This record gives sequence, C-alpha cells and structure tokens, in this order.
Amino acid sequence: MVDIATRVYNHKWKIDPIVRSLIDTDFYKLLMCQSVFRHKPDTQVTFSLINRTKSIRLAELIDEGELREQLDHVRSLSLTRGESTWMRGNTFYGKRQMFTPEFMDWFEKLRLPPYHLEQRDGQYELTFEGSWPEVMLWEIPALSVLMELRSRAVLRTMDKFELQVLYARAMTKLWEKVEHLRQIPDLRIADFGTRRRHSFLWQDWCVQAMGEGLGEKFVGTSNCLIAKSRDLEAIGTNAHELPMVYAALAEDDAALAKAPYDVLSDWQEEHDGNLRIILPDTYGTEGFLRNAPDWLTSWTGIRIDSGDPAEGAESAIRWWQDRGEDPTKKLVIFSDGLDEAKITELSKQFRGRVRVSFGWGTLLTNDFRGLVEGDRLAPFSLVCKAVAANGRPTVKLSDNPLKAMGPAEQVERYKRVFGVGEQAEFALEV
Amino acid sequence: MVDIATRVYNHKWKIDPIVRSLIDTDFYKLLMCQSVFRHKPDTQVTFSLINRTKSIRLAELIDEGELREQLDHVRSLSLTRGESTWMRGNTFYGKRQMFTPEFMDWFEKLRLPPYHLEQRDGQYELTFEGSWPEVMLWEIPALSVLMELRSRAVLRTMDKFELQVLYARAMTKLWEKVEHLRQIPDLRIADFGTRRRHSFLWQDWCVQAMGEGLGEKFVGTSNCLIAKSRDLEAIGTNAHELPMVYAALAEDDAALAKAPYDVLSDWQEEHDGNLRIILPDTYGTEGFLRNAPDWLTSWTGIRIDSGDPAEGAESAIRWWQDRGEDPTKKLVIFSDGLDEAKITELSKQFRGRVRVSFGWGTLLTNDFRGLVEGDRLAPFSLVCKAVAANGRPTVKLSDNPLKAMGPAEQVERYKRVFGVGEQAEFALEV
Repeated sequence: MVDIATRVYNHKWKIDPIVRSLIDTDFYKLLMCQSVFRHKPDTQVTFSLINRTKSIRLAELIDEGELREQLDHVRSLSLTRGESTWMRGNTFYGKRQMFTPEFMDWFEKLRLPPYHLEQRDGQYELTFEGSWPEVMLWEIPALSVLMELRSRAVLRTMDKFELQVLYARAMTKLWEKVEHLRQIPDLRIADFGTRRRHSFLWQDWCVQAMGEGLGEKFVGTSNCLIAKSRDLEAIGTNAHELPMVYAALAEDDAALAKAPYDVLSDWQEEHDGNLRIILPDTYGTEGFLRNAPDWLTSWTGIRIDSGDPAEGAESAIRWWQDRGEDPTKKLVIFSDGLDEAKITELSKQFRGRVRVSFGWGTLLTNDFRGLVEGDRLAPFSLVCKAVAANGRPTVKLSDNPLKAMGPAEQVERYKRVFGVGEQAEFALEV
Repeated sequence: MVDIATRVYNHKWKIDPIVRSLIDTDFYKLLMCQSVFRHKPDTQVTFSLINRTKSIRLAELIDEGELREQLDHVRSLSLTRGESTWMRGNTFYGKRQMFTPEFMDWFEKLRLPPYHLEQRDGQYELTFEGSWPEVMLWEIPALSVLMELRSRAVLRTMDKFELQVLYARAMTKLWEKVEHLRQIPDLRIADFGTRRRHSFLWQDWCVQAMGEGLGEKFVGTSNCLIAKSRDLEAIGTNAHELPMVYAALAEDDAALAKAPYDVLSDWQEEHDGNLRIILPDTYGTEGFLRNAPDWLTSWTGIRIDSGDPAEGAESAIRWWQDRGEDPTKKLVIFSDGLDEAKITELSKQFRGRVRVSFGWGTLLTNDFRGLVEGDRLAPFSLVCKAVAANGRPTVKLSDNPLKAMGPAEQVERYKRVFGVGEQAEFALEV
C-alpha cells in the first residue's frame, strides 16, 4: 500500500537537508562557545575549510549549487523550543544549568553568519568570518555538509540493490568491531564521529549499534542532537581552537608562552570534574607539560589527540608522577586515529596504570573503506580551523608535523617560544 | 508519517502466511505432476516429513497450533487467474504450452488434500496420503512451512536491532559468495533453494542478489512464484520420487530393474532438449549407467545429486565416451551440497570437458551459519519423501548411504537387484 501523503511529503523537499538542527554539532563546541561568549565575545575570527587529502578533488565531486543550498539551509536554522529546553534543563556531566541563562538567551536568537565560497584548483575555499562565538559554530555543520555531499555524490552512482548491499556490509563491518570491543574489560568509549561522518543517518545508526553492543561501556556521543533524541550523555570538553586563538591574540613572546595556560585558567573558573581535561599538544605536549603551572596537575585528565598515543599517555603518566600525583586516579582520553585494534592495544597497555577513555571518530562513523569499487567512499582528512584572530594568523604545531598549520615564519617563532625541536611524522589516514 | 491503513491492514492477519501461492513451489514438481497426472493418476501415495538432523527437535521449537494454521492456510490456496495465465502462456525451456489444457483444467480446480500431524519424540510426524498428483504437491510447501517456522521461532527471541544486524550479516555473507562466483568463466547457476529456505522473503532477496551480481551467469530459479514475479526462467526437470514410486509399483524383480528406465521412457515421450536430464543415483549411479538402454545416451545431460560430485561427473563422462557420445556436447548439473568453493572447484575441474550447470540450494537460501549465538539458525536436513505407493514401501539407495530410505529387507532386495555394493558415506550437512 502506498502512503500518498508520505510520498508527496518527501517530494516536497527541494533539497534533503544534511544538517537539520543547530545542535547537530559537537557538545564541546557549545561548551567552548559559552566560554568564548563570556571571555572573548568580540574577537574577530576566520574559520577555513582545509582538505588535507588533496587527491580528493571536492569541487569536482560536489556541485557548487548543491553545496550552497546546504549551507544556506544551515543559516536558516535556529534553536527550537525543544532543543532549548534540553540545553537548559538537562544534566551534563552531573551538573544542572551547565549553560547560563545569558548564554541561552543569546544562543536562542542566533543564526549562523554568512559564509564565503570559492573554487580553486579543484577544491572549495570555504571561509567564515565574524565574531568568534558565532563563526566557531560553523565548523561542525560545514564539515558534516561537505562529508555527506561527497558520500551522496558517490551513492548517486549506485542502484537500489547496490545500496542495500553497501549498507549491509557497512553494518556488518561495524558490528564486528563492536563485538571485538565488547571483550575489553572496563572499556569506556564515546562517539566523536560527527565531523567526519558518512551521513547523519549512518552516525545515528552507529551510535545505536554501540549502545546495543557495548551497553555500559558506551558512555555517550559528542553529537548533541543524537544525545537528545537517543537519551544519551553528551560528551566533550575543549579543543585546539581555544589556545590557537588565545595565542594569536598574544602581544609578545612572553604572552604567547603563557597563552595556552590562560585558556585553561579561564576554563577552570567555569568547569570542574570530568570537564577539566587538558589538551596539551597544540604547541607540543612535552614543553606544555614541562612548563605547566602546578594548579594544572590537579586537573582530572589529559586528552591525547596527535603523535604516538602510547607515548603521549606515557608522558602524561610520568608528568603526574613527577608532580606527586597518582596516575591511577587520572584520566587519559584517546581521540586520534582510533580503530578497534588500536583501542584494544591501548586498553591493554594502560590497564591499571591510569583510567582510560576513548573518543572514537572517523573509523566509527565513516569506515566505508573497501566497500565500493575504487574506494570512492573511503574517509578523508577534512578539517575546518580558526586560521586568523583579530587579523593575525593562528598557528598549530601539534605532536605531528603533518597536522601543523600557520605561516612558516610564525611556525618558526612558535617553535622557538615553545621549545619544540624535531618531531616524528604520523601518516594522516583520517 | 504513519500510514494508518497499512498498519491496520498488517494487523488484520491472524497469521502471517508462509506459503501464499500454489506456485510457490519448485518448477519440477509441476512438470512431474503433469507426467504423473497423465501416466499414473490413480496411484495412492504417502509422503512423509523426515528430519535427518535429529538434534533439532522441531516439535519443541515450533508450536503445533501455529504449524496447523500454516498448513491449513496452504490447503485454502488455489491457483489464481494470473498464475494460471503465466503457466498457460509462458515459454518454458523455449517451449510454449508446456502444460497441457487438460492438466491446467485439473490444476485450476485443485486444493491440496488433508494432512496428518502428530508429535513423537520431539519431532513432528507429518504425512500426506492420497492420489499421487495431489499429494506430491505437498512436498515443497510442507518443507517451506517447517523451515520458516523454525526460523521464526529463533527470530522471535531477537530484538529489532539484532534482526537488522542479522540480515546485514546474512546479506554480506551471500554477497561475498556472489562476488566469488562472478569470477568463474562461463558459469551457469540457478536457485534451487525453495525447500530449505530461511524464509520466502529471504529467498526472494537471494534471487535478486544472484541476478544483480551474476547477470547472465544466473540462469533462473526453481521457484515458480519468484520466476513469475521477477521475470526469470523457471528451472528444473525431475526428481527421485518418479523412480521411487515406479519401483515400488513393480510386480517382481525384473520389473523393478526396469522401473528407473520406464520413468525416463515416459518422460522422453513428453519432453526434449534441456528437459531430458537423467537423475541416475536413485539406486546407484554406477549400475544405472551400466545397464542403461542405448536411447538414454542421446539425452542432454545428467544431474548429480549425491555421492562425490566430481566422481559422479567423471562416471558420466566415461559412460558417454564408452557409448560413443561427445561429452563436450553434454550437460552435467550439480545440485547436491554446493557452496561457492565447491562450485569453483567443480567448474575448474570440468571446464572444456563437459558443459556444467549448478542448482544451488540450501547454502544459497539458508546460510545463516555462525550468525547467531548457538548457531540456532544453521540450516538442517529436512526432507519430505514418497514413502509408500499403493501400500508398498518405497526405497531409495542413492550414492550416499546416509541418504538411503526404506525398510531394511527392501533395501537389501533393491541392492541385490541393482547390483549395489559398498558405498562411501558423505556427511549430510544440509
């Protein structure tokens, strides 16, 4: 029986919107946004899309008109009443009223600012300029839109049967990973895959699969919309954009050296417990920890997001020990380049030595490797970063030179200020 | 949007019928039925369900009331106008009017005769008694009903998500087989999986997968309903029940020895070309070929349905050569215990030496091995056979003693008459 109304309804969509909600974004963006809204509301920031996988020529795959329609649709979104209620009324990390009434009043009125789009050398140049708390919210929807438009471009070439087999294989592949992971004792893992997801519906399925297969071991998702609709914990803390912008705003080398700690000092005013997580790699983990003020050692944990993850965790453990802290009480969050084998290995290596948690991204929500001919659905390395603040370029060094960003002379200056020497390269698969 | 009408419609079903059409059966049943209708319409035959996999206690898995409802539903079926049109008007094996007007007139009025159902030792005793052309049509629906009720009993214990993963894995598994098979040059393969299917919908999906993945290499399905709805060739010739009943009717040893050839003599009157396929193993392939009359050597091919398939094909090739026939013009159909590795191996071994074709059954339409805990959906060896004709027991020897049937003293008599000695056993997985 054909439901005519449903069919007509489906045909009414001029486009099938990829992002349908302002909270279809990572939880940490909202936390950071509130912090920025309080401390640096007037900073003018530029975000820019960067495709690190040059072999994928996005402007040849994705129609510009379609991309504009999707981005325009994102600009038409505002917070719904139910979403606002969830943000105001929900308990996040055990705390009520995580979002202040002042922030919520502002956020309820927000629409995302204009974007600037051009094509160059087969790639899209997509930038967002404006006040920091507004433009920063473009990062995740911009990435989701580009990732899913690329998926759609490939899926459009497949017929109904091929699509069914494709998703059957993708489900089977993910379920095998889940069955592996379920054997890890004391596993704690969250979905961090919004920005690189194959599609919204697929991420939503992956989250359900994790919940079904892992039970209590699955602790939540970074995606607020999915957390809300699936009644899960929203997970996340803070990201590189905070130290990158704070650093760019520094007036001299002394202020620059202090900037990463200023970020965390502001953060400490607002958050406690599991939200006090250090992200130490923006300008090199080693120097960051060596020069860290003592108050940082009391923080709950460290997130390892570049370089060799085991080495990063060993550095953190040594640092806590050197500073007289008990690492078994501390938390290490791994969030870079994870797959089930790496998760298993790291769990084993650090079991009993430190509390461990995983934020699983790309290879949770976009592992379509090997599923179509020519691997045209394999994930790729797309980011959207703050590249300038109040007219000055931002810089990122990271623990992997392939993730470094910024003008060469500034990179040299930052290396000198932060005492970063030779760094090992780690292939950027995703 | 909920389509209320569809939901109400779905709820109206007291049962969800497994067999919804009289032609949801194997094509060869209809061909044999017409032959029987012409030559032996009054023979009284008993068909009986036999579960060779004793470890699966069907009466404990399947509710008797549910089984009766399904069987009663089959008895309520009669040929629809569209089905009759298809049988009367379609071209089968290149021939129009395969089914005679006399047969069709009778078949249009047919309803299946009563069944007799009892429980014993955790198994169902299900028998059908009546005139041969009527009761023979119970075989396939009875098997489909039992197989699918067993699947449903297991599926009922699974939740929605587990079911989705189950079918994703089953699809992935089958698609991998199809991708293997697609590499075999000159492959010709048909679906023979109706009787052991996991379910009707699953068989229908498997057939589509074969068509999508194999193109011309997929030559059709034995299932008439699916052939009709998917516009495919209906495939099949004849089965053991013909020689078994003819043999049971034989008045003495001389007539018994002649019986398997009488069957084919009757068949030859009605059919030519690709329908002239010898099934030689009912009372041992070796003796059958040794004693075969010369007119049989002109037949198109031989179907190998028990014993070691390669040996069976080698015997056939030697037999044709000994009788002055060119084996490269002949057809060997393999239809027993096939999976993609065996199909690949046999294709390679006989390529260029004889034309080869495959009738793929259980491991096409019911390979759920390893997909649920305890392997509770693994296929098993269920058959429904003619066990008596005009009050005399039937006997089958086969090329595998594990497939033999009949009272011990009759088995001995048949072995003597057909000169069958020691036989090698082949594990009956499915």
